[in-house]
Amino acid sequence: MHLYIGNQNYSSWSLRGWLIFRQYNLDVEITKLKLFTPKFYRTLENITPTAKVPTLIDGKATIWDSLAILEYINDMYLNGKAWPSDHLERAKARSLACEMHSGFNAVRNEMPMNCRATRRVQLTEAAQKEVARIDEIWSEQMRLYSNSFLFGEWSITDAMYTPIALRFQTYQIPLSDKAREYQLKVLNSSAVQRWLEEASTETDIVIEDEAGEDV
Amino acid sequence: MHLYIGNQNYSSWSLRGWLIFRQYNLDVEITKLKLFTPKFYRTLENITPTAKVPTLIDGKATIWDSLAILEYINDMYLNGKAWPSDHLERAKARSLACEMHSGFNAVRNEMPMNCRATRRVQLTEAAQKEVARIDEIWSEQMRLYSNSFLFGEWSITDAMYTPIALRFQTYQIPLSDKAREYQLKVLNSSAVQRWLEEASTETDIVIEDEAGEDV
Ligand SMILES: N[C@@H](CCC(=O)N[C@@H](CS)C(=O)NCC(=O)O)C(=O)O
Ligand SMILES: N[C@@H](CCC(=O)N[C@@H](CS)C(=O)NCC(=O)O)C(=O)O
Repeated sequence: MHLYIGNQNYSSWSLRGWLIFRQYNLDVEITKLKLFTPKFYRTLENITPTAKVPTLIDGKATIWDSLAILEYINDMYLNGKAWPSDHLERAKARSLACEMHSGFNAVRNEMPMNCRATRRVQLTEAAQKEVARIDEIWSEQMRLYSNSFLFGEWSITDAMYTPIALRFQTYQIPLSDKAREYQLKVLNSSAVQRWLEEASTETDIVIEDEAGEDV
Repeated sequence: MHLYIGNQNYSSWSLRGWLIFRQYNLDVEITKLKLFTPKFYRTLENITPTAKVPTLIDGKATIWDSLAILEYINDMYLNGKAWPSDHLERAKARSLACEMHSGFNAVRNEMPMNCRATRRVQLTEAAQKEVARIDEIWSEQMRLYSNSFLFGEWSITDAMYTPIALRFQTYQIPLSDKAREYQLKVLNSSAVQRWLEEASTETDIVIEDEAGEDV
């Protein structure tokens, strides 16, 4: 398999797709393309209809969306284990994953992922509401499973919320204790540590993703 | 099972969730709540964390996102048949469904679903690009399966693109012949005809969703 990703410092969607390979130690070749460069578009143009990352090539299959990649790997290589096995938990895990995939636009726009930075931003009311909702999700799950992933074992839902844990670190968003517990669990996981290490070797600046003031 | 939906004239996300019950003739009780009314929020507040429609209650399970509802029904009641059985097709079907779930914001904003209206809108460049992408998706699939659903048999991907077929009708968006073929397939399907019939009995106006000029 071959996974195309963007700059690890910035590409939140790439991180989601990448995580499942690392969590389950799956073999994958990674090509990192610098976002928004001519080479990025030249490379992706011929392999994906949307020219976005992450994109996964697996033999004849092309999968060009982060959630679709997570579902595909789960379906083809993990025998379903990247979703909780209990059907009630799976229903909730899917609702949370899909809620993230189609929403939280204010958080996305106002707090672009930027792993190496520490910033301060003034959030709109819409973004504040979204932050509160995420805090509620994380803390509710941590009351059910303390000090762990959202459903105990790592699941696709964690992949979907991991970029948020990094954004909240960059922009120093205050969280309730239980939500903070989850954020730390994610930030300290070995997969995320590896991502951050790889990101830290990058020097390119993507100006669109530089928001807020240094603190 | 109990499905909560919004006004059928306007609620595109509700339509997606509703369709799978109709396509497979599954038993479901439907409660229609008028969007943005106090009763809407009062009812949903106690059953869903996001107070949005569609929401499905199935025994102890609550599923509060349209794509999650589609996956849940497929998983629990359809033995997976709402995705194509071939793994390459399934990979593509999932990519297209997820591409829709997380994207096409300009089309959503500029062409709110409004089944009973016939309107003209001036689209931004962003929306025009999205329309072109949808035309490409539909026509590519119709070259593979003519006069049919996106992957031959009806699938979750069709649920995701059905509201777009209705929007393009309302705002009279010109399409290539092949894409138009798909649009007509969807509009003439008995499930969509039934939705439109039910929508046509509604008289409420949701001002946020009234865009464009009557023609
Ligand atoms: N729905 C897609 C979105 C992917 C996406 O927007 N990726 C960004 C980078 S984080 C990208 O490739 N942008 C390039 C562009 O828009 O030209 C997914 O979940 O994978
Ligand atoms: N991601 C959700 C979005 C659902 C959604 O936004 N529904 C709208 C109606 S079409 C809603 O309930 N709006 C009420 C509100 O935002 O207060 C899904 O796919 O179901």
